[in-house]
Amino acid sequence: MAQYHSSLDSVFLALADPTRRAVIARLGQRPASISELAGPFDMALPSFMKHIATLENAGLIRTSKHGRVRTCEIDRDRLSLIEDWLDEQRRLWEGRTDRLESFLRDTDKDHAK
Amino acid sequence: MAQYHSSLDSVFLALADPTRRAVIARLGQRPASISELAGPFDMALPSFMKHIATLENAGLIRTSKHGRVRTCEIDRDRLSLIEDWLDEQRRLWEGRTDRLESFLRDTDKDHAK
Repeated sequence: MAQYHSSLDSVFLALADPTRRAVIARLGQRPASISELAGPFDMALPSFMKHIATLENAGLIRTSKHGRVRTCEIDRDRLSLIEDWLDEQRRLWEGRTDRLESFLRDTDKDHAK
Repeated sequence: MAQYHSSLDSVFLALADPTRRAVIARLGQRPASISELAGPFDMALPSFMKHIATLENAGLIRTSKHGRVRTCEIDRDRLSLIEDWLDEQRRLWEGRTDRLESFLRDTDKDHAK
């Protein structure tokens, strides 16, 4: 459970930045090298590499080096952590709505008596 | 667009903490007072109030004061920001998969010639 929470913390934190979300969106299309990824951003390479490290530490991307080129690819399973958490919230919410509906139905029956 | 990104940043950041996620899960069931919410946590009230302020600033909860009691309720529309972002990623991914499938189909046709 502690591991689950720590994973969720790092995934949510990694996505709390527009540059990192843009990298995820780009890698959702196909793997890319660091220089391809960095291209559209007006940012010094060391700053960009920090964003890449944050995404990699959160498990959202994997990187591998071939010769002098480091290639990044997305790990989509990691995004499903957030989808599962949202599903859980929806179930809690729907449970609440079901209870509210049955309360209103019962109240209605009482009034009809 | 800047507003959209700044909202997503603050929502993702607010959810990158287990206490704040537990508060969201609790409020998904029904509104609650600050003292009800703080009850299960072994945390000084000022620290807990910082978490509440982070959630409120991100727009994930609303608070209102009646007499001496401050009540919190969830704003579920704000969670849908994340759902929409995930849907967008899925569309990018599926677009990629469609292109890959059509490439493989075309390659297969070429081989069959």
